[in-house]
Amino acid sequence: MTEERGGISRRGLIGGGAALGIGAAAAGFGAGRAVADDATSASRDPEAYSLYGAHQPGIVTPVQDRLHFAAFDVTTDSRAALVDLLRAWTDAAARMMHGEGAGPAGPTSGDYDAPPDDTGEAIGLPPSRLTLTFGFGASLFDDRFGLSGRRPAALAPLPHFPGDNLQEERSNGDLCVQACSDDPQVAVHAIRNLARIGFGTVGMRWSQLGFGRTSTTTRDEATPRNLFGFKDGTMNVKSEDREALTDHVWVGDDTDQAWMAGGSYLVARRINMTIEIWDRQPLREQERVIGRSKAEGAPLSGGGEHDQPDFARAGREGEPLVDTGAHVRIAHPDHNGGVRMLRRGYNFVDGSTEIGRMDAGLFFVAYVVDPRTHFVPVQMRLSTLDGMQEYVQHTGSGLFAAPPGVRKGEYVGQHLFGA
Amino acid sequence: MTEERGGISRRGLIGGGAALGIGAAAAGFGAGRAVADDATSASRDPEAYSLYGAHQPGIVTPVQDRLHFAAFDVTTDSRAALVDLLRAWTDAAARMMHGEGAGPAGPTSGDYDAPPDDTGEAIGLPPSRLTLTFGFGASLFDDRFGLSGRRPAALAPLPHFPGDNLQEERSNGDLCVQACSDDPQVAVHAIRNLARIGFGTVGMRWSQLGFGRTSTTTRDEATPRNLFGFKDGTMNVKSEDREALTDHVWVGDDTDQAWMAGGSYLVARRINMTIEIWDRQPLREQERVIGRSKAEGAPLSGGGEHDQPDFARAGREGEPLVDTGAHVRIAHPDHNGGVRMLRRGYNFVDGSTEIGRMDAGLFFVAYVVDPRTHFVPVQMRLSTLDGMQEYVQHTGSGLFAAPPGVRKGEYVGQHLFGA
Repeated sequence: MTEERGGISRRGLIGGGAALGIGAAAAGFGAGRAVADDATSASRDPEAYSLYGAHQPGIVTPVQDRLHFAAFDVTTDSRAALVDLLRAWTDAAARMMHGEGAGPAGPTSGDYDAPPDDTGEAIGLPPSRLTLTFGFGASLFDDRFGLSGRRPAALAPLPHFPGDNLQEERSNGDLCVQACSDDPQVAVHAIRNLARIGFGTVGMRWSQLGFGRTSTTTRDEATPRNLFGFKDGTMNVKSEDREALTDHVWVGDDTDQAWMAGGSYLVARRINMTIEIWDRQPLREQERVIGRSKAEGAPLSGGGEHDQPDFARAGREGEPLVDTGAHVRIAHPDHNGGVRMLRRGYNFVDGSTEIGRMDAGLFFVAYVVDPRTHFVPVQMRLSTLDGMQEYVQHTGSGLFAAPPGVRKGEYVGQHLFGA
Repeated sequence: MTEERGGISRRGLIGGGAALGIGAAAAGFGAGRAVADDATSASRDPEAYSLYGAHQPGIVTPVQDRLHFAAFDVTTDSRAALVDLLRAWTDAAARMMHGEGAGPAGPTSGDYDAPPDDTGEAIGLPPSRLTLTFGFGASLFDDRFGLSGRRPAALAPLPHFPGDNLQEERSNGDLCVQACSDDPQVAVHAIRNLARIGFGTVGMRWSQLGFGRTSTTTRDEATPRNLFGFKDGTMNVKSEDREALTDHVWVGDDTDQAWMAGGSYLVARRINMTIEIWDRQPLREQERVIGRSKAEGAPLSGGGEHDQPDFARAGREGEPLVDTGAHVRIAHPDHNGGVRMLRRGYNFVDGSTEIGRMDAGLFFVAYVVDPRTHFVPVQMRLSTLDGMQEYVQHTGSGLFAAPPGVRKGEYVGQHLFGA
């Protein structure tokens, strides 16, 4: 058993120093914290989620505070090496989500002649609700791995949207991993160790840190704010809305590719905001663009944050209270065939640009049942009609098929490989 | 009174919605949290620090979890405009450190025809131990503002160190602001609002987010870990060491420029780590380079983390247990004329590089009484002798004079301007 090789979970090191074996560590773990068996449940704030379940964690899981998202390209043509990597990633993900090291020996194993199988910077840190969510990009389905017949039709490259200013080095990728945690060091540790494990099989194509969440996926959480200073995600699909999850998020059994049943499509968009220009707009203009009040997030047609906007309601001048180009109007399900998304976006700041502006905005992440119906038409509408377009620029983009959850003994995406 | 213009602190919005005035908000604030009058005290974990005191906050203040550091260039030649900015920054800093908006009206003032004097993304967030610390770069002391005679001799440009690969766009600047907070959204909000206030007077030259602290400044905190996976800052100057603060951190009355008495010199270095290479080194090599054990952070000569290394002690082969090139040996005060620094560094990840490596490392921040004695010789030694040099590359650099603290009614750096 690997546990007998002197393995030490990072939790063990808190409890009693390096001499503790994995048994003691596991006991300490079990005694100290609840582990949610199924991260797709809406149970709140256990310290650790399980990797295993019908769906992958990190989708309807209550949104954690911080994000590290990474896209990888596979650098080998070996299908076997790719499968081995997915096995190793699955094993490491399950460990790290429980607050253990990425490998069985741990960061401070007794084997001084080998590189540690964990990098160590998360020693002593609790699991911090870490979730790891994996996805496959369209480019994985070329002729390298024998997968060309298994690409779902929904995993078609996204079209060019008006105003897109995409940077190839911030876009696409064969594989992606979304790491969410309340502690950024835990999220970074997870991505870094998956990259380490993948050395020689994958190379990191791009990665993005997000410091603040902009959405909630449960009903009882206060709506967080984006860098426009407005509440974001008021109308997000919530994990309690089982019917909405079925209709708008989870891929059903009627999919063209059976391996995706129970999965979802992850759309990532790096949306830069011209916040210096935004900050010089009068409050009236800011609220006009959003269609909601800045203080409460209430629709400008009246009521409270969670009341539906009345798009027909006019003010004294006869103009609609919710402007014809307001974001809330253009994006509303009533004007988009009823489609909704489950969003898990994060605020980002990546330093400043050459002209002294903050390189900042929203790293948009959404999960949808089919991007052809649930993202592309909405984004096409937004990119042509939304008044907010004057203040944003899309600089990165990715679309990934996030396969269903794994059972113990399986690896992530196993059914894609026909096993 | 500005408070009567419908101003709403962000705390007011938590308590009872937008209708609450500042009076109620302030009451809620006072009732709910302790405010440390002097952030230079070692008192732990109040939710808010005061800007006012003998020294600036954010130096010996217990290190917060997250960092947003920004450097600015002044874009006007007007000394009056620069002074006005420092006044406005001082006022905004005092407000934001108390959890209020950056300006008196707040993010959702009733004046719809004006841009809000706060950007809003921190509405509802507690002060989160925000500190704002200001510094002046050598370039401020050219002939633009009549300050050329007031530059301290200690504020000389740093020399080129062997191995430096500095990027000008990540280095230097006329002014700097260090924002530290337990909530990154609060730190980002503060920098963003100072930049907004400075529009037309300053432009942002560069900025850096740090997601995880790597040092402590009080004795009872566990030592955090850097991205090498090792504990960092074990021997840091602690706020309880009053004598060490006097000897190594605070500028005394004997300074050549009286306006700096009670201040300190801030050295910032963006140190990239080649973590992919590091991760492939055997544990033995990693510990040899650091000179400490990875698990506990104990010197390889024996004892516990806080025991002093015994540099003379040899192992069975006669070789010293702490390698001749170990970081702990080269950096130790015993080998550097006894000098020490107060460090407040942060881990960073800024995505990935063109060759698929993580753009990651340590954003080193240290406060010293005089960089000519307390930084330059140490860094020259490290850059030539330290085995760690094989795994790091300095890509950004800044040296700033952080003036003493302000009293109520003063502005940051007031004594520099002779007022």
